[in-house]
Amino acid sequence: MPKDGGAKVAVVMGSQSDWPTMKLACEVLAELEVEHEARIISAHRTPDRMSAFAKGAEGEGFDVIIAGAGGAAHLPGMIAAMTHLPVLGVPVQSKALSGWDSLLSIAQMPGGIPVGTLAIGEAGAKNAGLMAAAILALADEDLSERLQDWRAARSADVAETPVD
Amino acid sequence: MPKDGGAKVAVVMGSQSDWPTMKLACEVLAELEVEHEARIISAHRTPDRMSAFAKGAEGEGFDVIIAGAGGAAHLPGMIAAMTHLPVLGVPVQSKALSGWDSLLSIAQMPGGIPVGTLAIGEAGAKNAGLMAAAILALADEDLSERLQDWRAARSADVAETPVD
Amino acid sequence: MPKDGGAKVAVVMGSQSDWPTMKLACEVLAELEVEHEARIISAHRTPDRMSAFAKGAEGEGFDVIIAGAGGAAHLPGMIAAMTHLPVLGVPVQSKALSGWDSLLSIAQMPGGIPVGTLAIGEAGAKNAGLMAAAILALADEDLSERLQDWRAARSADVAETPVD
Amino acid sequence: MPKDGGAKVAVVMGSQSDWPTMKLACEVLAELEVEHEARIISAHRTPDRMSAFAKGAEGEGFDVIIAGAGGAAHLPGMIAAMTHLPVLGVPVQSKALSGWDSLLSIAQMPGGIPVGTLAIGEAGAKNAGLMAAAILALADEDLSERLQDWRAARSADVAETPVD
Amino acid sequence: MPKDGGAKVAVVMGSQSDWPTMKLACEVLAELEVEHEARIISAHRTPDRMSAFAKGAEGEGFDVIIAGAGGAAHLPGMIAAMTHLPVLGVPVQSKALSGWDSLLSIAQMPGGIPVGTLAIGEAGAKNAGLMAAAILALADEDLSERLQDWRAARSADVAETPVD
Amino acid sequence: MPKDGGAKVAVVMGSQSDWPTMKLACEVLAELEVEHEARIISAHRTPDRMSAFAKGAEGEGFDVIIAGAGGAAHLPGMIAAMTHLPVLGVPVQSKALSGWDSLLSIAQMPGGIPVGTLAIGEAGAKNAGLMAAAILALADEDLSERLQDWRAARSADVAETPVD
Amino acid sequence: MPKDGGAKVAVVMGSQSDWPTMKLACEVLAELEVEHEARIISAHRTPDRMSAFAKGAEGEGFDVIIAGAGGAAHLPGMIAAMTHLPVLGVPVQSKALSGWDSLLSIAQMPGGIPVGTLAIGEAGAKNAGLMAAAILALADEDLSERLQDWRAARSADVAETPVD
Amino acid sequence: MPKDGGAKVAVVMGSQSDWPTMKLACEVLAELEVEHEARIISAHRTPDRMSAFAKGAEGEGFDVIIAGAGGAAHLPGMIAAMTHLPVLGVPVQSKALSGWDSLLSIAQMPGGIPVGTLAIGEAGAKNAGLMAAAILALADEDLSERLQDWRAARSADVAETPVD
Repeated sequence: MPKDGGAKVAVVMGSQSDWPTMKLACEVLAELEVEHEARIISAHRTPDRMSAFAKGAEGEGFDVIIAGAGGAAHLPGMIAAMTHLPVLGVPVQSKALSGWDSLLSIAQMPGGIPVGTLAIGEAGAKNAGLMAAAILALADEDLSERLQDWRAARSADVAETPVD
Repeated sequence: MPKDGGAKVAVVMGSQSDWPTMKLACEVLAELEVEHEARIISAHRTPDRMSAFAKGAEGEGFDVIIAGAGGAAHLPGMIAAMTHLPVLGVPVQSKALSGWDSLLSIAQMPGGIPVGTLAIGEAGAKNAGLMAAAILALADEDLSERLQDWRAARSADVAETPVD
Repeated sequence: MPKDGGAKVAVVMGSQSDWPTMKLACEVLAELEVEHEARIISAHRTPDRMSAFAKGAEGEGFDVIIAGAGGAAHLPGMIAAMTHLPVLGVPVQSKALSGWDSLLSIAQMPGGIPVGTLAIGEAGAKNAGLMAAAILALADEDLSERLQDWRAARSADVAETPVD
Repeated sequence: MPKDGGAKVAVVMGSQSDWPTMKLACEVLAELEVEHEARIISAHRTPDRMSAFAKGAEGEGFDVIIAGAGGAAHLPGMIAAMTHLPVLGVPVQSKALSGWDSLLSIAQMPGGIPVGTLAIGEAGAKNAGLMAAAILALADEDLSERLQDWRAARSADVAETPVD
Repeated sequence: MPKDGGAKVAVVMGSQSDWPTMKLACEVLAELEVEHEARIISAHRTPDRMSAFAKGAEGEGFDVIIAGAGGAAHLPGMIAAMTHLPVLGVPVQSKALSGWDSLLSIAQMPGGIPVGTLAIGEAGAKNAGLMAAAILALADEDLSERLQDWRAARSADVAETPVD
Repeated sequence: MPKDGGAKVAVVMGSQSDWPTMKLACEVLAELEVEHEARIISAHRTPDRMSAFAKGAEGEGFDVIIAGAGGAAHLPGMIAAMTHLPVLGVPVQSKALSGWDSLLSIAQMPGGIPVGTLAIGEAGAKNAGLMAAAILALADEDLSERLQDWRAARSADVAETPVD
Repeated sequence: MPKDGGAKVAVVMGSQSDWPTMKLACEVLAELEVEHEARIISAHRTPDRMSAFAKGAEGEGFDVIIAGAGGAAHLPGMIAAMTHLPVLGVPVQSKALSGWDSLLSIAQMPGGIPVGTLAIGEAGAKNAGLMAAAILALADEDLSERLQDWRAARSADVAETPVD
Repeated sequence: MPKDGGAKVAVVMGSQSDWPTMKLACEVLAELEVEHEARIISAHRTPDRMSAFAKGAEGEGFDVIIAGAGGAAHLPGMIAAMTHLPVLGVPVQSKALSGWDSLLSIAQMPGGIPVGTLAIGEAGAKNAGLMAAAILALADEDLSERLQDWRAARSADVAETPVD
């Protein structure tokens, strides 16, 4: 499983309209200095691109895949069906059903094909980035320290009392 | 679009456990003398079988595809992504969420990739068979008559008054 | 089943307020050069107009009916009860319940009377148009090609990477 | 609006399978000595029977219509669309969705066509009978007294303390 | 049950904030020339006012009570507990849960105490007015005609085709 | 606020059918040696009993009221409307909707009239008992110790490892 | 359990963003002249601060704890796990799911660890303040009077008729 | 981050009653020859045990933590708050709400503290085991091969056609 120094986390999403959500994943990965790459891959409009990506992800050097989609969100689960790499799913908030559909379409995977699902929307995207980092940190002590520092700084930021 | 006299409707499902539901589709197709074929195709466990099936369905002579699945039910939508044939989706009743997840995963497809979704469970499977027949009947007057007879018989069966 | 060269797809809706949603169906049918006709037919305010339409739809030369409605959305199911033509249902997003009511009222039809239900709102309306085209394309190779081209063009439009 | 001494309340339902629920309406009407009549009328399988019934209900001497159905429950709303008599709707508990679909399909009627919706299942059927009686009691002092007695007896039956 | 020529329909609501919804009931009653009276009665803040109203409603000459409330909406059910007059409930759209809570709190009454529940929000309020009129029309032929005219006019207003 | 040595916690419920749930509250109160009394009080069938109880509860020496009900569960909120004592609500699991209706009817009270809502079903009933004890323990050090002991014993009971 | 004259009610919340909701609790406590203190304590970002607070709350002289949080809202339940003081939970309205997640995460506590849950959002925060006051009023007759006066004033404010 | 050859995956759960679900995680880990250890840790009844576990998990040599709980399921999120190791959450099916509460309580974590959530119930437990293996396989080629073999075998097991 040699790595070429390239991106270790792929952040893929079903359409450009998912980017305002999914960029939160990229931002936190950037803060943690984790190499990553964002791509648009639509399960429904580009199924072959999806298959090629999922099957080639390990070969491209990716360790973790973050996939975000909304509505009948098939992207995370279908990628998980075609790779044994860990896949994290981000339910993007949908127009009519506010993400109920996205959440169930991603989380309720059948036994055999796991997707680690995060929260609906921006919090979920950010947490997908953090969880990818936590996974990579298992074999990267520097990253582990950066992650712990990031978390500690965030905890330290919590004020004692609310202000108007 | 030459037809070889073989099955015109494919009835596919994600696993053997969907069969007690999906056989209702086959039964009504049989009653209407519509050639059909049932197969197990798992979006998640056999994604390549799914791709091959979806891309080859027209070539195999299929006109309509009925796909049933439960939970994060990706099969109907993913097949629809890889064929321009009409795809009908049957949300199989799931264990924990009773089919809420199946329904949303199948119905809430993004613009561009349609799946005609039927009701959750056996009623939906039966109706998928009927809708496939209605589609085929557009070009088959005999089938159209059989379908109208089937419907008329069912209407005639409705008793006037309930009995204990 | 002689056709008079007129519209093959009827796009009906419960009220003028459904038009901003339902016109997406008409637009995609127009792009695919499928003859269609839009009408307002209210299940609740004009039940006789609905009966006359549903019973006469085949005679008018329609092959597929697209029906959209919101809330306690009875139009698609009631039309399906009075015609053996394939009926596609579009759940229009409702004010209080965002389309949960529309979706269930359309999708949860009893065994015997199928409605192929699409997604809530504009995506569903567009997909109803596409599915009607897919059905008609079974007997119209030119349309089949236009439909495949339309889909291919849309797939080709998917950018590789997201942009801010 | 002369009455012929016949049944004043029609209790209609979509299928025989609704009878175990809907007979609760009949039972309470019988206890209150309100003439009533139970019929099976399927919105989907017998739409013409439904239209004939709804349009003729006043002429038959009915004052109130109780309609029960499950799933995509269109019967109460469609009857209400074709009569100006008061219509009460009973959402029958459905298999997959436990009556969520029935409730929304009946209650969420658009402005203009009212259906007075009762609770899901047996409690709702019983209450539909009671509400029909309350409506008739406005013009029938004897019935009003029977209804008040019925209610008083039921209140008197409430024990002071629970027993194991 | 002598009537004094006063209001026959009481339109009550839990707070001033329900008025923008509930006034739709009053408006349709006014159009139909049905005497009515609007009052604020809070189940929770003025329980004694509520008891006095419910118990005295028949004596005041009311025939039908329309009660609207949002959230944990107890007003319709509690009034129904203290009068044998027909009670119609309007679930007012709530802030966080959009009326899901209002609908269930009003519709899911136990066997014995009926509330005829209308749709969430303005459509429900309007329909409560129409249903009250339908009930009163059973003993008032003039009102029956006005109601039928109102309905016919509304049906006649349905355009044939949608416009942009 | 002199106490007569009698019961300090009233455990009331809408019907005998709630007792299998609500007795869990009584059992934990008994374990903690808190005087309590169980009564059936139906908001809908015995509204006057409810009013009398709620208004007289402080005079009877009660400090805390636990009220359980299912479906359109109005008992806790209506009692809270008529007493300034703390009221705890237990949503009893309902037949069709499994307690979704009970939970929303109890928890979603408007500002001004609080009900402290516990979980649906037996866990909620038990916790209502514990919370009542916690409230009383503020002025009863012996009870506080018993409560802390009860909790400590329960924590000590948690095994380290699961067993088949 | 000697009190030092300091704050008796702690109002804690998961983040500054909860303050616009939670300050309603503080405002009503201020109106009732109940000493209270607001703090930010995040279950997830400051778990040790939470533990220290919960375990030390009695020692700090607090009698009642009000805890508000949104989404996967763990703060109220976790504090309840570490104190035997009564804990009131306020589900803050969340972005995607409008508080459904907050409500279930707070209300559905397992048997043994009670949280008295109030309504979603501002009404719930206000009611948490009122319920805390009701609890303290059990041992404080002056507060009991202020609370009763507050409630009476609010009831007196309910207008008789709605105004446009 | 030296490893002592001990268990790399901790499988923790809130109570013995979660074991029938959570043992599916252990079973798949055993099939994949991944060292693991199952423990009962209740967020609510043993919060200190939980803190000690979470803070010490890395020191104990764990790389991944699987946490399962039902209802207001705080265990996964609270552990995630106290460790930077990757945490996977399993929503155990709950009695009244079938796991809706468990799913939302686990998945809807705020930004900053990720939990990778799997499906409700047994499928989710199994998938948590598989995802833990996938994470460990990033640094363990033998495990990666076993995991790929496991997946391939499962795919090969999918029959071509359903049987009665």
